[in-house]
Amino acid sequence: MKKSLLQLKENEQLDKLPDCDFSIIQNKSLFCYGSDALLLAKFCQSPANRIHDKDITVDLCTGNAIIPLLLASKSKSKIYAVELQKESFLLAEKNIRLNNLESQIKVLEGDICNIEKLLKKNSASVVTANPPYMKSNASGIKENSNQALNIARHEIKCTLKDVIKAADFLLNSSGLFFMIHRPDRLNEIFNELSNFNFQIKRLQFVHPSINKNPTMVLIEAKKNSKAGLSVLPPIIMYP
Amino acid sequence: MKKSLLQLKENEQLDKLPDCDFSIIQNKSLFCYGSDALLLAKFCQSPANRIHDKDITVDLCTGNAIIPLLLASKSKSKIYAVELQKESFLLAEKNIRLNNLESQIKVLEGDICNIEKLLKKNSASVVTANPPYMKSNASGIKENSNQALNIARHEIKCTLKDVIKAADFLLNSSGLFFMIHRPDRLNEIFNELSNFNFQIKRLQFVHPSINKNPTMVLIEAKKNSKAGLSVLPPIIMYP
Repeated sequence: MKKSLLQLKENEQLDKLPDCDFSIIQNKSLFCYGSDALLLAKFCQSPANRIHDKDITVDLCTGNAIIPLLLASKSKSKIYAVELQKESFLLAEKNIRLNNLESQIKVLEGDICNIEKLLKKNSASVVTANPPYMKSNASGIKENSNQALNIARHEIKCTLKDVIKAADFLLNSSGLFFMIHRPDRLNEIFNELSNFNFQIKRLQFVHPSINKNPTMVLIEAKKNSKAGLSVLPPIIMYP
Repeated sequence: MKKSLLQLKENEQLDKLPDCDFSIIQNKSLFCYGSDALLLAKFCQSPANRIHDKDITVDLCTGNAIIPLLLASKSKSKIYAVELQKESFLLAEKNIRLNNLESQIKVLEGDICNIEKLLKKNSASVVTANPPYMKSNASGIKENSNQALNIARHEIKCTLKDVIKAADFLLNSSGLFFMIHRPDRLNEIFNELSNFNFQIKRLQFVHPSINKNPTMVLIEAKKNSKAGLSVLPPIIMYP
């Protein structure tokens, strides 16, 4: 870890990542990672790691680069991390340097709605995304509230369709797309994926407890795949 | 119960239905009901009964009329039960008479692919279906094996699309469609429902145990509905 980066700015905190030797600097005024990022990374890696050393991975809506850091702890896949917001982009870059991962992870500043300006078509074999969950017209957006958080949580700058469209652009013909989202959006998720010729191959629901509705769903989709989907045993957060 | 009907034929057996006063005659050489029928009926009825006395219900692929019998035990909804196979149709009729339900349940012999010959467009508020789960080209069909069972289990006489198309034809503008199917068909289920302008409103997975993939999925879909889907807590058959 590079000590020189550890002069934390106001609002920044240093956190150790679970199950690896990496650390992350988070800014409390920006989006801090939650269990969804940990779940998505684990979903990509279990039961067997589905991201191999030769894969080219792109993480969309990367924020502080939590997903690329977690993926890099388990594979040598080259990873491109795309972030729109300047402050989060700079923090993501700092986190890559903090963990000496500059040769494996490259952070790109830009808009996934114009992904062709950042990366080449069909250049990736894996795309991951922990996108904004909520519609831009959903409740919860407060005027004059923290705009960085609003953009991370609500579809203000990119919609579900934009994310899937970018994944479709990036992935090669047998590429895999991993996403975590809200179960109440499943009709749209299935429909938009189908519109871009993805089939869902694995689904796993995350329930707060065995008697509660799931609050998150993990999705693995494949381009140009035959039908056939496995729903995995539920993840119960607090058994 | 009408004793005169109790002179069981060869291969027939009389079973008491759970949680109600009705009985059913099953023919061991035809399709006998399983836990899927019980689960589907319960799914329609819980937490609150979603089938009301004023509803007009149509059960597609009714077999020996197990679903109509279970639904009739909890609501006074008028029920039309559609069955293609002559032997099953006759058995379904016998089961309705056995339980004195002739005024509530009417069994129709015919093909759901030509549902317009049996019932009027938009005449139902609820449609239920426990259709064949397996593709007609799937393994498991044995030549010279029991054709009645093959037709009940495999999409020989009707496909998933045929079932959804019939439900679309029958249901009025805010009608509800309840179905049980295999989770591995979910890509097609979402896509075909969407093609007929249904949105899935409730999903519930049925797992043999908490650590196993689900083997069945319960689906409630609504015509012309806004997005928004609830995935319910999993049903664990052998906790």
